[in-house]
Amino acid sequence: MDEILSLPSFSASLCGEVPEKMSSLASANQSSGESEDYSYGNWYIDEPNAREEASQPYETIPACQHSFPPSLYHTCLAPLSLVAILLLSLLVKRRRLCLGCCHGTFGLPSPLDFLAEESGRLVPVAVFGILFTKLCVLALEEDPLPFLPISSPAGQGYWKTLALLYYPALYYPLIACATVRHQAGYVLGCLLSWAHCAVQIWHKVECPQTPKVTGKSYYEDYLRHILSGKRSKSSSSVANPSFPSRILFYFLSHIYSPQRGFRLPLKLILSSTLAAITIYQEVLLLLVAFVPNLQKAREGITEEVTYMLAGFGLVLSEDKLEVIAWVKYYLWALEVCYVSALVLSCSLTFLMLTRSLVTHRNNLRAWHCGATLDGGPQPQKPGVGATAIFCWMSFSGYQTAFICLGLFLQQIIFFLGFVLFTFLVVIPILYGRNLLLFYMLENTWPFCLTLILAVILQNLTAHWAFLENHQGQQELTNRKSLYAVTFLLFPINVLVGIMVGFCRMLISALFNIIHFCQLDLSLLPRGVETLDPGYRTYCYYLKMEVSQSHPAMRAFCFLLLQLPGSQRLAGAQAGLRPSDVEEGIRLLQTKNSARNATRSRQSRIRWGLAYTLIRNPSLLTFRKKSLSGPLANGSQPSSPNP
Amino acid sequence: MDEILSLPSFSASLCGEVPEKMSSLASANQSSGESEDYSYGNWYIDEPNAREEASQPYETIPACQHSFPPSLYHTCLAPLSLVAILLLSLLVKRRRLCLGCCHGTFGLPSPLDFLAEESGRLVPVAVFGILFTKLCVLALEEDPLPFLPISSPAGQGYWKTLALLYYPALYYPLIACATVRHQAGYVLGCLLSWAHCAVQIWHKVECPQTPKVTGKSYYEDYLRHILSGKRSKSSSSVANPSFPSRILFYFLSHIYSPQRGFRLPLKLILSSTLAAITIYQEVLLLLVAFVPNLQKAREGITEEVTYMLAGFGLVLSEDKLEVIAWVKYYLWALEVCYVSALVLSCSLTFLMLTRSLVTHRNNLRAWHCGATLDGGPQPQKPGVGATAIFCWMSFSGYQTAFICLGLFLQQIIFFLGFVLFTFLVVIPILYGRNLLLFYMLENTWPFCLTLILAVILQNLTAHWAFLENHQGQQELTNRKSLYAVTFLLFPINVLVGIMVGFCRMLISALFNIIHFCQLDLSLLPRGVETLDPGYRTYCYYLKMEVSQSHPAMRAFCFLLLQLPGSQRLAGAQAGLRPSDVEEGIRLLQTKNSARNATRSRQSRIRWGLAYTLIRNPSLLTFRKKSLSGPLANGSQPSSPNP
Repeated sequence: MDEILSLPSFSASLCGEVPEKMSSLASANQSSGESEDYSYGNWYIDEPNAREEASQPYETIPACQHSFPPSLYHTCLAPLSLVAILLLSLLVKRRRLCLGCCHGTFGLPSPLDFLAEESGRLVPVAVFGILFTKLCVLALEEDPLPFLPISSPAGQGYWKTLALLYYPALYYPLIACATVRHQAGYVLGCLLSWAHCAVQIWHKVECPQTPKVTGKSYYEDYLRHILSGKRSKSSSSVANPSFPSRILFYFLSHIYSPQRGFRLPLKLILSSTLAAITIYQEVLLLLVAFVPNLQKAREGITEEVTYMLAGFGLVLSEDKLEVIAWVKYYLWALEVCYVSALVLSCSLTFLMLTRSLVTHRNNLRAWHCGATLDGGPQPQKPGVGATAIFCWMSFSGYQTAFICLGLFLQQIIFFLGFVLFTFLVVIPILYGRNLLLFYMLENTWPFCLTLILAVILQNLTAHWAFLENHQGQQELTNRKSLYAVTFLLFPINVLVGIMVGFCRMLISALFNIIHFCQLDLSLLPRGVETLDPGYRTYCYYLKMEVSQSHPAMRAFCFLLLQLPGSQRLAGAQAGLRPSDVEEGIRLLQTKNSARNATRSRQSRIRWGLAYTLIRNPSLLTFRKKSLSGPLANGSQPSSPNP
Repeated sequence: MDEILSLPSFSASLCGEVPEKMSSLASANQSSGESEDYSYGNWYIDEPNAREEASQPYETIPACQHSFPPSLYHTCLAPLSLVAILLLSLLVKRRRLCLGCCHGTFGLPSPLDFLAEESGRLVPVAVFGILFTKLCVLALEEDPLPFLPISSPAGQGYWKTLALLYYPALYYPLIACATVRHQAGYVLGCLLSWAHCAVQIWHKVECPQTPKVTGKSYYEDYLRHILSGKRSKSSSSVANPSFPSRILFYFLSHIYSPQRGFRLPLKLILSSTLAAITIYQEVLLLLVAFVPNLQKAREGITEEVTYMLAGFGLVLSEDKLEVIAWVKYYLWALEVCYVSALVLSCSLTFLMLTRSLVTHRNNLRAWHCGATLDGGPQPQKPGVGATAIFCWMSFSGYQTAFICLGLFLQQIIFFLGFVLFTFLVVIPILYGRNLLLFYMLENTWPFCLTLILAVILQNLTAHWAFLENHQGQQELTNRKSLYAVTFLLFPINVLVGIMVGFCRMLISALFNIIHFCQLDLSLLPRGVETLDPGYRTYCYYLKMEVSQSHPAMRAFCFLLLQLPGSQRLAGAQAGLRPSDVEEGIRLLQTKNSARNATRSRQSRIRWGLAYTLIRNPSLLTFRKKSLSGPLANGSQPSSPNP
């Protein structure tokens, strides 16, 4: 359970390979780079001892041997997990083990009821989080299965594929123990999760700096620098101390406005948690894979760079020291662009995720009331199909994958955009260098000016020459001039159209990239929405979710079980809570909701009637009115006695 | 008017510069390339005398001096056009010339009534076509204004900008003469257009091969080859001789199903014609800019290529002749990819254009009946705004520009796609070379297989294990196994999600590129449609079109003018036709449309009533029912006498 503790160590391990190589490169450069000009240092973060730090070569960390190696850890815990599962099966399903092994689940305890939310939400969320974290590590790990030594690097792919199945199985008991509702289950689960946790902590204490982690835990300092720098600046502009909390409150109220009785399904909560973990992991990965290396490269720049640039015909300046300063400045600008792009893409993805949550809630409420999604499958169709089940199974995985891809895409696009903006607009304005864009503008300004003037002219004439206010109503006038202007400006309008076309392309591409992570939004226009595989999955997922855990149905089940005398017991056994009933009843409420005891009794009787009639369809013919009408719109049935 | 004749000569002139340079290159290569292997020749078009033709160097065409140079042509025709316009102003607007020069249009005759379609459609379509063709030439012309010699190439941009205004003015009289409805106008218009035509023909006869045209009119032969080759192949497979005509008929019926009284507005017809011209011009340009040059490069390949490739470390084969054959084959494959991409993008653009026409008709009919476009402005709002006028003015220009850009984008993307497909899939399968993709598949097959198996497994279990048929209705079963499978396959589903995400990106990008040329379709999803500048322009254009030329309004005007005795005269003066009335009346028809004289009289009286009440709103209070209701849905008003 506590493998979450290992998230930082994992993230640190991501930047393992490259920095080690870079550090040797940097130390090699130190010998020849003693006459460096460090004036660039004060452009960036306030670093008084930059000179001393830079002159120290990066330490190499000696390999640390665990007294309890990961292979042993897995060799012990995997059988323990297996034993735990078998024990649970024996204890809980003792009676029908012999029968149960021939059909259905082979006596395997179920992980959790994704549709009914009977257990708490913390355990499944934590286990899915650990599982996904393990998946992230797996992509970069050399030893995907530590207990099996890999003979050749060529076979690594096979073991990674196998590990995709091994880790879910390893963590299966953690989630199963919490859901069997047996005291032994809780004890076993606690033991197992504490075992996992203890091993993780032991590993961390024994080898606080693994060879995979850069010596100075660079990225942590870096993050602290950035955050502290920002805070000290922003504190001066914000006078009200409760401002952030007010923003947080506003933000939270946007995601979750308290609506009595409504709860998001467990699978959506799981997907959102996984999405948040994905954002964290990926941003950390993107940060440590680029920024520290770039900084080290910047520190390692010597005079050799000037010869290299001259070899390519690039002469930034006659003075070599100045060239070095410029190259360092450009590298620093690249870094700033990268971090800005990362902050922007991370914020946008997070914003889209919160918007998704709002949309999920609205869509669920609409489906509960029988409405349909645009272009999605019809909820009125009874039962579920195989497609809906398949989409329901894949939903969380797809959501996680889309967040990964979307964030990566955004990072690439925003980084390129920021770099172009910085090197073509900001640096030319600040320093009068790289005037490429301005030379282009100088050559084409009559053309650009003509286009702008034509657009302004058309807008002005449309406003002042071709419209007249006729008794409070705007009417077209001067038609002949309008036609003449339309004809004469047609060639210029074609060229304006080319510019508008580029804008159209840009808007459409940016919109799709920013909203790529959202499954609840089709990237295709009206009418062809379900050609988008993500949106299609979402629609079918919702259909399945609504058909299997509709609050009205759950309230019905709860009321049926709530027989006088055994109310508490039955409710506890079914795992249902009064909130289920509340939500269900609210869906059936009429507008004048005067609550009283008679009403509650009446609805119980009505539910009973509905249940009886559904189980015995032949009785329908003996009734005056059909059943579906009164139930669907919640009006009073004519005779409550069946 | 007959400048359309110059379309082929224009198109030929587009390929002017590059082939001349290429021909010298090719002839230089001929000397060393006599031992070439022409076995590639029979891979492509059936060319028995390829060897002889290739050995002849391309002729250079001597510069041809016009006895009536273009500068003189413009110097004469521009004043003539000016005189024609002044004459027209004097003749037609004689009475109010002195007054008219102080306000409004300064006595300038109107080009045509874009909204009322009073004149024929041929003249405006032809003039707009010529104007746009001139615009295409302008982009490549060295002398944008032939009567003004350009001193420096730097100043060319200014003249081009000026030419954007000059050419509409030059062709203005052609369109104005046809619309003034004066005998002198027709005579002047004919004289002017024949003068234009005669000069064009004279130029063509005097210099049939201008220096800008390649000597052998290569692209014409090429097109003929392609077309004839296709026809001879396809004739064997198609037995029924009426099949193409049947397809054409089906196609036309899709664009224009005869709906009594309905006509597309002139501006849409103009835009469609311009779109067709754009497709023709651009495809020709793309064809002649690439294919002949590639073919010449292929013919000019000698042994030197083998040394150059070896310099880059690429050794296709030990035998030099074989290397030459392979390079030629690869170039030929490139050419086939390019032509295929061009055919595909041209067909798709044309298809989208025809679909647009259908959508235009449906949208117009819907707006006429008071419906609104998705996300567009509300048609119920009375009057027009400045935005609508501006969008109406720009519409044709934007449509033309979007077709240009869309076709170009499609060509790039499809070409890249075809090249990747050919070099990574087709050639490896046919010849066992470039096995890059297959090596990648070989290394990752266990991973790919796992993903595929996981998807198949989930689909199969969803079908056979988790669904049961319960009294004709499919219900979920084996829930615990479902939850277990969902949990265990979660990591694999994340990876499947990455693949699905790539598909999502690809589908969305392809859809947007293919539909880029359509203004009637927003590239953005539901709810944010009007952020797309193209769609926004379209919506406002429709609003303007409907508010100014609504068939009901035009029918009303016609009926008002149709006073007994002066019917014919009034109808002719207003430029209205009975079809306007038909269309308008059909919009107001009730379902039981039994036509008789009483009914026609009754509707005339009702129109009169409506007109009176709109002009005198104070009378409304003396009537029992409000006016808007009965008019909007066409039901009988209570008392027909005002």
